[in-house]
Amino acid sequence: MTSPTKTIACFGETVLRLAVPVGEFPLQSPRLDTYVGGAETNVAVALSTLGHPVRMLGALPDGPIGDAAVSELRRHGVDAAHMLRPAGRMGLYYYLPGGTMRPAEVVYDRADSAFAAAKADDWRWDELLAGVDWLHVSGVTPALGPQSAEATLAAVRAARAAGIRISFDGNWRGRLWSRWNSDPAATLRPIVAEADVLFGNHRDATLLLGREFSGDGPDRRRDAALALLDAFPKLETVASTARHIVEPTKHQIVARIDRRDDHAQTETADITPITDRIGTGDAFAAGVIHGLLTTETLGAAVQRGLALAALKHGLQGDFAPFTRPMVESVSFTAADVAR
Amino acid sequence: MTSPTKTIACFGETVLRLAVPVGEFPLQSPRLDTYVGGAETNVAVALSTLGHPVRMLGALPDGPIGDAAVSELRRHGVDAAHMLRPAGRMGLYYYLPGGTMRPAEVVYDRADSAFAAAKADDWRWDELLAGVDWLHVSGVTPALGPQSAEATLAAVRAARAAGIRISFDGNWRGRLWSRWNSDPAATLRPIVAEADVLFGNHRDATLLLGREFSGDGPDRRRDAALALLDAFPKLETVASTARHIVEPTKHQIVARIDRRDDHAQTETADITPITDRIGTGDAFAAGVIHGLLTTETLGAAVQRGLALAALKHGLQGDFAPFTRPMVESVSFTAADVAR
Amino acid sequence: MTSPTKTIACFGETVLRLAVPVGEFPLQSPRLDTYVGGAETNVAVALSTLGHPVRMLGALPDGPIGDAAVSELRRHGVDAAHMLRPAGRMGLYYYLPGGTMRPAEVVYDRADSAFAAAKADDWRWDELLAGVDWLHVSGVTPALGPQSAEATLAAVRAARAAGIRISFDGNWRGRLWSRWNSDPAATLRPIVAEADVLFGNHRDATLLLGREFSGDGPDRRRDAALALLDAFPKLETVASTARHIVEPTKHQIVARIDRRDDHAQTETADITPITDRIGTGDAFAAGVIHGLLTTETLGAAVQRGLALAALKHGLQGDFAPFTRPMVESVSFTAADVAR
Amino acid sequence: MTSPTKTIACFGETVLRLAVPVGEFPLQSPRLDTYVGGAETNVAVALSTLGHPVRMLGALPDGPIGDAAVSELRRHGVDAAHMLRPAGRMGLYYYLPGGTMRPAEVVYDRADSAFAAAKADDWRWDELLAGVDWLHVSGVTPALGPQSAEATLAAVRAARAAGIRISFDGNWRGRLWSRWNSDPAATLRPIVAEADVLFGNHRDATLLLGREFSGDGPDRRRDAALALLDAFPKLETVASTARHIVEPTKHQIVARIDRRDDHAQTETADITPITDRIGTGDAFAAGVIHGLLTTETLGAAVQRGLALAALKHGLQGDFAPFTRPMVESVSFTAADVAR
Amino acid sequence: MTSPTKTIACFGETVLRLAVPVGEFPLQSPRLDTYVGGAETNVAVALSTLGHPVRMLGALPDGPIGDAAVSELRRHGVDAAHMLRPAGRMGLYYYLPGGTMRPAEVVYDRADSAFAAAKADDWRWDELLAGVDWLHVSGVTPALGPQSAEATLAAVRAARAAGIRISFDGNWRGRLWSRWNSDPAATLRPIVAEADVLFGNHRDATLLLGREFSGDGPDRRRDAALALLDAFPKLETVASTARHIVEPTKHQIVARIDRRDDHAQTETADITPITDRIGTGDAFAAGVIHGLLTTETLGAAVQRGLALAALKHGLQGDFAPFTRPMVESVSFTAADVAR
Amino acid sequence: MTSPTKTIACFGETVLRLAVPVGEFPLQSPRLDTYVGGAETNVAVALSTLGHPVRMLGALPDGPIGDAAVSELRRHGVDAAHMLRPAGRMGLYYYLPGGTMRPAEVVYDRADSAFAAAKADDWRWDELLAGVDWLHVSGVTPALGPQSAEATLAAVRAARAAGIRISFDGNWRGRLWSRWNSDPAATLRPIVAEADVLFGNHRDATLLLGREFSGDGPDRRRDAALALLDAFPKLETVASTARHIVEPTKHQIVARIDRRDDHAQTETADITPITDRIGTGDAFAAGVIHGLLTTETLGAAVQRGLALAALKHGLQGDFAPFTRPMVESVSFTAADVAR
Repeated sequence: MTSPTKTIACFGETVLRLAVPVGEFPLQSPRLDTYVGGAETNVAVALSTLGHPVRMLGALPDGPIGDAAVSELRRHGVDAAHMLRPAGRMGLYYYLPGGTMRPAEVVYDRADSAFAAAKADDWRWDELLAGVDWLHVSGVTPALGPQSAEATLAAVRAARAAGIRISFDGNWRGRLWSRWNSDPAATLRPIVAEADVLFGNHRDATLLLGREFSGDGPDRRRDAALALLDAFPKLETVASTARHIVEPTKHQIVARIDRRDDHAQTETADITPITDRIGTGDAFAAGVIHGLLTTETLGAAVQRGLALAALKHGLQGDFAPFTRPMVESVSFTAADVAR
Repeated sequence: MTSPTKTIACFGETVLRLAVPVGEFPLQSPRLDTYVGGAETNVAVALSTLGHPVRMLGALPDGPIGDAAVSELRRHGVDAAHMLRPAGRMGLYYYLPGGTMRPAEVVYDRADSAFAAAKADDWRWDELLAGVDWLHVSGVTPALGPQSAEATLAAVRAARAAGIRISFDGNWRGRLWSRWNSDPAATLRPIVAEADVLFGNHRDATLLLGREFSGDGPDRRRDAALALLDAFPKLETVASTARHIVEPTKHQIVARIDRRDDHAQTETADITPITDRIGTGDAFAAGVIHGLLTTETLGAAVQRGLALAALKHGLQGDFAPFTRPMVESVSFTAADVAR
Repeated sequence: MTSPTKTIACFGETVLRLAVPVGEFPLQSPRLDTYVGGAETNVAVALSTLGHPVRMLGALPDGPIGDAAVSELRRHGVDAAHMLRPAGRMGLYYYLPGGTMRPAEVVYDRADSAFAAAKADDWRWDELLAGVDWLHVSGVTPALGPQSAEATLAAVRAARAAGIRISFDGNWRGRLWSRWNSDPAATLRPIVAEADVLFGNHRDATLLLGREFSGDGPDRRRDAALALLDAFPKLETVASTARHIVEPTKHQIVARIDRRDDHAQTETADITPITDRIGTGDAFAAGVIHGLLTTETLGAAVQRGLALAALKHGLQGDFAPFTRPMVESVSFTAADVAR
Repeated sequence: MTSPTKTIACFGETVLRLAVPVGEFPLQSPRLDTYVGGAETNVAVALSTLGHPVRMLGALPDGPIGDAAVSELRRHGVDAAHMLRPAGRMGLYYYLPGGTMRPAEVVYDRADSAFAAAKADDWRWDELLAGVDWLHVSGVTPALGPQSAEATLAAVRAARAAGIRISFDGNWRGRLWSRWNSDPAATLRPIVAEADVLFGNHRDATLLLGREFSGDGPDRRRDAALALLDAFPKLETVASTARHIVEPTKHQIVARIDRRDDHAQTETADITPITDRIGTGDAFAAGVIHGLLTTETLGAAVQRGLALAALKHGLQGDFAPFTRPMVESVSFTAADVAR
Repeated sequence: MTSPTKTIACFGETVLRLAVPVGEFPLQSPRLDTYVGGAETNVAVALSTLGHPVRMLGALPDGPIGDAAVSELRRHGVDAAHMLRPAGRMGLYYYLPGGTMRPAEVVYDRADSAFAAAKADDWRWDELLAGVDWLHVSGVTPALGPQSAEATLAAVRAARAAGIRISFDGNWRGRLWSRWNSDPAATLRPIVAEADVLFGNHRDATLLLGREFSGDGPDRRRDAALALLDAFPKLETVASTARHIVEPTKHQIVARIDRRDDHAQTETADITPITDRIGTGDAFAAGVIHGLLTTETLGAAVQRGLALAALKHGLQGDFAPFTRPMVESVSFTAADVAR
Repeated sequence: MTSPTKTIACFGETVLRLAVPVGEFPLQSPRLDTYVGGAETNVAVALSTLGHPVRMLGALPDGPIGDAAVSELRRHGVDAAHMLRPAGRMGLYYYLPGGTMRPAEVVYDRADSAFAAAKADDWRWDELLAGVDWLHVSGVTPALGPQSAEATLAAVRAARAAGIRISFDGNWRGRLWSRWNSDPAATLRPIVAEADVLFGNHRDATLLLGREFSGDGPDRRRDAALALLDAFPKLETVASTARHIVEPTKHQIVARIDRRDDHAQTETADITPITDRIGTGDAFAAGVIHGLLTTETLGAAVQRGLALAALKHGLQGDFAPFTRPMVESVSFTAADVAR
């Protein structure tokens, strides 16, 4: 294991979550629990807490609401000095927690946000990526609209040109794509084509490649990963999780990493009780990136991802600010109070 | 499926629940969580949210506390304009949530409330039931005292005379009956005799008919239902649930409907995690009434009842304000976040 | 005094207030206190609580957030059945309460809301105004954009044609107008031209008429009112308040009504302590409309407005749900506990 | 000054206050802040905290709600072992805090409580008063109904017979008396006749003696006190406060004690900001009793009463659990943080 | 079964728990949930609530924080009049609740507290133990430092000399011992040598006796108990629990009591859902002491311990204030609402 | 005015405030509101929010509580990377808010904290002060004990040697000094002797110089400042405030700056309503430092100090995170909502 020294940049929208209190319907109590999040922001916070130098790239509205979001990033050690701060509105989403027989629901309100309204060339990639070793983007950003899609493509191409490693998390959000784009795969493929690391499973592969993958469990996911590695020559690593929902507050997750000539899969982790499922996929991505940068085997790397994803289920909010000792001491069995 | 057009009236007491915060003993924190409820009121709110025109009949004290209860009814679309508003006190109950090894407990404080103190002829049934197609009452109201029992009987007889369909939910409350009445069955039988639909299981049948029902599960409940249908000629439909408590926050429920020549039973639903068990029986009644009014088969109707009862377990408060799409989309398996 | 029988319609946007807890900066605590409001909605709720039949006209997004807002309207007895419910986002604003030396601040986020995005002809005024006796609109709505401005004009012209009385509250919002319109007066004048009652002071008159009013206090306001009555022949009544801020939580308000040949002015009311200043102007408008409909003198009418405005300062949230006895018993001197 | 050694018994009903959160209307938030109180209970808690051995006499319902009230008494060192614990309900009152232009309001719900339903001879005064040196009662208890009035009279007569000193606080509650008694004075006079110390001003004197007292301020109160001392030969001391409400959260209080041949009056105290006005009269009574038992001059005694009353305005809840150093260090001028 | 009449004294430190809200990391919300606790204090509160006369012996700092702790003891009926009240600081610990994959964590901050700083001879055992029948101490106190260890030894020797029965709970706290003592067993053995009842399992036996115990489950624990009884001749009874952690909020516990010639073991209890695991071992000790004092068989006594331990898991805070009927009605199966 | 470019270091202890909720006594509700603070830390946060590069020097305990404090510093942009992180405890203080007639009270619990236990040479001033332009210290630190006093002296001497400007805030804390030091002035004088800027009034001068200053208001403060400037040749600037407490939540403050040949004094500011008085002196110091670094006149500099001090009174918590526009727009008169 090595110490973190690589500077990681995350590009994407930082948003507010306005959450109905658990067990209530909207406005049953006159308040909304409020968290700062966003898929790529969550990765940034997790990696920063794990000790990596992290820079957030994106846009937040000028004024007190955007300022509060910047403060939350700084609280977790993320460098927010490179964010655009135009006039505009804060992207947000309402979160309605699930209950018995009722899945949690996300109601997006991020159209026309300061980020989504930014033009592709508002971001000056030469400057923004100076000193960066790794760039992380996700499928949420191109889903926001043509300008954001164009910006994502420009970012990964600039990174590739600068020799920066690139990770891409599929993060399929049908409710965003359906607003403007009938062929998401055509938008996504040139972005994925620049990535070194892809977070995605057989469903992402089907979306990108236009074919189904049969079989069950690990085999199907290996097949999908190999197909992705075949379709995208620059791609080296595919990481994914499979989630089985036993009960609303008890899930099982297994994670794997595939390379052309290697792979590793974790044991199945029992995740219970679940406090907040939002951001767990981002925690997985952060954990795998951390693993790839600091451990020597694929098995160790994917274990970091699973550990961080599992830990995130037990914390309120979108972020996964778990320290390196916390992640590395996860034993995947329940333990008694430490005292 | 048809759209709701029938006007439903619910007659009963609207009460306050004063709930000790979960995981605490009374006054451990200096507050009581406060909800408006009451068995028949809960049915009214659920049916209103499902799209039915609903009128609440009852009595609330004049003044700001009664006004607040009226506002809660209106919030859910229930017509509260026909309520009596005499001077008096608000009926209430304290709720002590259970914990490990400790069942939840209800401490009633509804004696001498504005409702319980109302005289039977304070309610003018001709006016109150004008334009009503369905009247719902329950066994809680006659349990409150002789005046309330007399009023319930007058209500169902007036409804029967006016050609209004009548549903009756057993809702056995031993702690209320034991205060004044040594032969509850004698009080209840003439009320049940007017009902078209009865919510009750083999225990209710034993209470009303004075005989035990042997056997196990569905057979015993079918026997009990047939005995009830035999004893009460106007009765057409008996609906019931059977609850198995696996853990304090994990129950299993199965529901069924019996008619003389037909019946339907649901699969067993796993209900977990349970946020608030109060009002789930009322939600079942509302769901079945909704099903009988809008679906074509007994199976579909009882499924509506089970779905609404299951959903209620996941919401704080006595009410089950779930919309028709929510009820109809219940799949009885846990699902991931919708986004 | 007479009992309310006239049906009042209010047209405008119903919005969410997301309020930072008092004494904190944004996200110091992870929650936002959340209220439903909007200038015309506030008038609707107040008039409904005072006993008037009230219909809200506007648009709320389809889905659970819009549903919650509808429920809040119904809670206060407002008829929300005529609202448009398109797909879209909920208009909202952030509220940062003031502190010592720091005024409260509103950060609007209502662009592109379901209401603002509605086209002028989405509202069918013939149907929406059927049975309506009084229509209330305000300067907030035309400030939202050209479609909303056009809709407001169509509404008041349809009302005028139908013989419906019209009230208009100036409600100047510079931060909204400056987004799209360099000549607000040109937009507002044809709307005001249809009004019977105008809520506005000398600053509103200056805006609409393009001239200053000198002098001090009552004289200046009388001059401005006469100029407005002169400029807009259909206008019969101008009502206004003057606010003096003694301390952040101690204001003084005086109110007046002017007609061409009559006027009335209240004593100065000491308003302290102030819990929530938002919506106090809307409460004044509602109180005056209530007074004009139920009392016999201008003095009594303006007193109702001042009383309701004063009461609103002491209640959290945008609404002023004070009953008629509460409003009529205001003595403008502090009193001890009633017990 | 001497140390407390006399055992004080307080007889009266211990009740729950269910308080709407400040700045809200009932059920605006789904909770009621909950405190244990009651006029005589408040005196008991204050005297206990000041170091006196205190015994509470009364009745609380058996079960968890009554248990919680007992625990609150014990928390403040009050001996609750002599309370009756019959089956029954807990007396309570709703508290609606005032706001600008709107006085706070109490809605009683104490009829038929375990205390009010107790029969006069349920209390065995020989046993209950054994070892007691001082008995405190108030006008709230006889206002509850004939049984409670009879019990109060029996208590003071038993105390008088046993040589126990007796204090009586007028505590006029019109809303309680009007329910059952058209001549409260006739009920109260024999009780007052046994008292050594009376808390009451010219209004109490008018009620008891049937005559008005003219004049202004101290003179009128001295006249009233002398009239009371004249009418009730056993009476030795009359203590009273005069309250001027400057603003809702800023009052002025002056206190005095009158004896036949002596009197003392305090300076005027500015009381601001006021957090909770409930129980301040009871705190005054407790402070005066404390002063009479531990200081040597009337002036010192009434100063203790004023100090404790003033302090109570700044604490949530019905109780005034201020220690002797806190009471004795009150300087009646605002001070900076002690650190 | 007999009624409690024996006076029990508990000696140990009363501390504050400052708990991060569940599901959050420290300061995610700006508050710490605050409870009074401490191993021996918890035993005192539980035994007092079960009806035993209980006296707490220890030290709390003079001033308002210590006063608040005293009030909490009194709230539960514990006699706190014998506590030392020196100047000094309050011992406390931070509690970080666990989450998925993350055990709860205790961060002690009790060094140099008023208790830990007290000298051994600050406690005058002759006076403190006058009238006491049973003394309870635990291994937490000697772990605090040499003065506290010396005080514990003096306490048990004084008790032994006075014919007072003595119970000792092992309560191993490695984080406390490691601060100052390399041979805890040498410190503990003379204390245990005076005890009649020991709460401890095979791990405590290994610590005290310096040997391992092989085998599985009950056999190993019986072996360890017999070895303890062998090593400590005055010891008569050893009680212990075995905990299996199925899930973070679902544990299984089995309890047993061993005497030289007798033993009893409970069935396995399923403990779910777990609200707060802290203090459950102290609840077990209290339940067993209660059982030994009021029941006739070892089986009944250990059942009381298991019941109280199980109940505690469902209540927030360190205390287990469950009444005797609650403890005796535990059925170890989940039950529905009692109403 | 110029932009901030000078790097400021603050040396002192970062502590937790555990605050009883306003209007309650300790543990009336089971929680303590928790803030990070400390006199020098507060200065650091304020200066960072005003745009200055700020480095905090001090010590926080290793582990999750210290980590949370570091995060709070980072949230406000303060560089916390130079903090010592030894094993140990977090310094803290309890805060009991005042009420009517009752001043707020601070109960310190900072003895033996990680900071106080640090040895003087644990801080390597060469490294810690590298790149620093301004060092701020206060009288709180030498009050903590001999090691902290020695460290403060070493810090200012190292700064002086390195040509770094030095500010010192008197911050007299009698409760800390009285624990260990009978001649605080002797300890403080060599520290003050190195300072360029001193925050202190005539009381601080009396303490340091051993003589009284007669006269009233500004004259006395000018005399004291000149005496200080005379006694300490390196000293150039003395800044101070005078506070008049009108009511507990209404203070008046006037501020001044004195140099040998110049001075400036502000108007009197009315500060109301006061939310939280803690940290207002630190805010004044930060504002003056900001003013000295970015404005051209003494009058402008002291105005910045007064503005920031005034603003702080309206915000919960120890910090004053007000932005430069907020500070510069303070008008010292109350204003209406900005919208």
